[in-house]
Amino acid sequence: MELVVIGSVAYDSLETPAGVREKVLGGSACYFSISASFFDPPGLVAVIGEDFDDSCIRILEKHEVDLSGLEKTKGKTFHWKGKYEDLNEAITLRTDLNVLETFDPKVPKEYSEATSVFLANIDPELQTRVLEQIEAPQLVACDTMNFWITTKRPELMKTLSKVNILLINDAEAMQLSEQDNVFKAGEWILKQGPHTVVIKRGEFGSLLMQKNDIFIFPAYPLTQVKDPTGAGDAFAGGFVGYLHATGDHSFENMKTAVALGTVMASFTVEDFSVDRITKTAYAEVENRYKKLIEYTNLKPVNLATLKRAAKLS
Amino acid sequence: MELVVIGSVAYDSLETPAGVREKVLGGSACYFSISASFFDPPGLVAVIGEDFDDSCIRILEKHEVDLSGLEKTKGKTFHWKGKYEDLNEAITLRTDLNVLETFDPKVPKEYSEATSVFLANIDPELQTRVLEQIEAPQLVACDTMNFWITTKRPELMKTLSKVNILLINDAEAMQLSEQDNVFKAGEWILKQGPHTVVIKRGEFGSLLMQKNDIFIFPAYPLTQVKDPTGAGDAFAGGFVGYLHATGDHSFENMKTAVALGTVMASFTVEDFSVDRITKTAYAEVENRYKKLIEYTNLKPVNLATLKRAAKLS
Repeated sequence: MELVVIGSVAYDSLETPAGVREKVLGGSACYFSISASFFDPPGLVAVIGEDFDDSCIRILEKHEVDLSGLEKTKGKTFHWKGKYEDLNEAITLRTDLNVLETFDPKVPKEYSEATSVFLANIDPELQTRVLEQIEAPQLVACDTMNFWITTKRPELMKTLSKVNILLINDAEAMQLSEQDNVFKAGEWILKQGPHTVVIKRGEFGSLLMQKNDIFIFPAYPLTQVKDPTGAGDAFAGGFVGYLHATGDHSFENMKTAVALGTVMASFTVEDFSVDRITKTAYAEVENRYKKLIEYTNLKPVNLATLKRAAKLS
Repeated sequence: MELVVIGSVAYDSLETPAGVREKVLGGSACYFSISASFFDPPGLVAVIGEDFDDSCIRILEKHEVDLSGLEKTKGKTFHWKGKYEDLNEAITLRTDLNVLETFDPKVPKEYSEATSVFLANIDPELQTRVLEQIEAPQLVACDTMNFWITTKRPELMKTLSKVNILLINDAEAMQLSEQDNVFKAGEWILKQGPHTVVIKRGEFGSLLMQKNDIFIFPAYPLTQVKDPTGAGDAFAGGFVGYLHATGDHSFENMKTAVALGTVMASFTVEDFSVDRITKTAYAEVENRYKKLIEYTNLKPVNLATLKRAAKLS
């Protein structure tokens, strides 16, 4: 297995302005895996309970996700209940850790030679424990959230010190760095270990930053968003999946990875749970990618030739 | 005079996280004029009171703004007092209309043949009255704000019906259109008269929309914003000034105009009032424009050649 993800597989209960869903498939590693499968299906390190439905397993199998690292154990699957009043902010109503509470991730032997690893949003101690079981990864990316920044900052900083790329929300980037400006937050993060940071801004797109480079990209224009859950994880799936599939970690190629993360997130939010992304054809991915280039690119013009320019210094 | 602007010239009293300023130069037409002067200095239709300081006149003269349409009358100059807790939202503390209350704009004869007109944020009745005095403009753009949407909707809709391009904030676009999505708001506006709408999103950049085209552009990355006042008017100055100076109203050229609006807004917010934009050299404009192309453009990649793509339909 060349690309490995550790994170959560969950049942989500959701309330958004578009409707309500009870116990639908979710979890950071689940969204990541399905999204990454459009570029290279990953191996999944996660835990589920006895209640986890076979139909959900079949969704992951359809996307050729390797499930030898998916542990089934006594108890119930991790359950997250949340709502969105404003589509930009998830409000947690209830978190039942269930089988996650005692999860001790064991990386299957065939995963230990993985070249790319994604540490999806989960306890940073578990992220580190998994990373230590991978022998010599060439690309390590991770995500996190406000809960871990507040409750496990030292453990999170330890994870960060071993990571190449951090993907993080704008509000969480500012919380983590204690900066009031998103670019300053990015600069701060780049001093903690990662050589690259991707700051996700929801409907406003994302920023890709390295020490001397910036790339700014919008979200895909949508007239309806039904459920933002998993958008960030699907973004990471497109981003890391593409970088892994091409093996090219240059800044230029990361720009394309941002575009593909953006595309995968756009499918995810168009319906509840994984309903839309699992129905997506690869041709649709290509099509939205091309559209985004149209929507963002600018032909350079020589401003020095403007007649009036001479009037000012 | 080929490019004409009607709007306010004001004294602003400002409080932002970066500090406090009392009675500094401001007003929609003032910011627009100074910004547009980098491409083609406009003629200014506005009113000031007896208290208006000569030093402010000299700032406009330095930028070669034509002042034959600037009326000086008995009473005090329009005064706006506002503060920003969050840099994305202005809170009005006090508005003294003063000489604006009885302003009946008279367009100088030499302005009546203008080819481009910008109706900066002001009472939509005054916007229409000025527009009626211009014989055959080829480009009419306008801005507005929540106050006019609430208090003078019929008058505003009349102005809109005669306008080619509306520049408007995202929150105001949604208020005007009664839509909850920015792209739907844009589509609604395009049915009211304008063939083009530019939706400004503050630190998140802007959208350019026509019936069958979208262009999405970020704000210029800044690590400090001192005073957001006038950003939208400076944006309009760069946007309309460049379109006027080139005489090319194609969608492709409007993309460049968006980039230049973005650049002019970025200088404006770096200091209070017009302090930074009046110190800007044209070479700095060119430099930020080139940087923005670097920060946003993407080289197209052929995704069909990806090894793993064949796995999905």
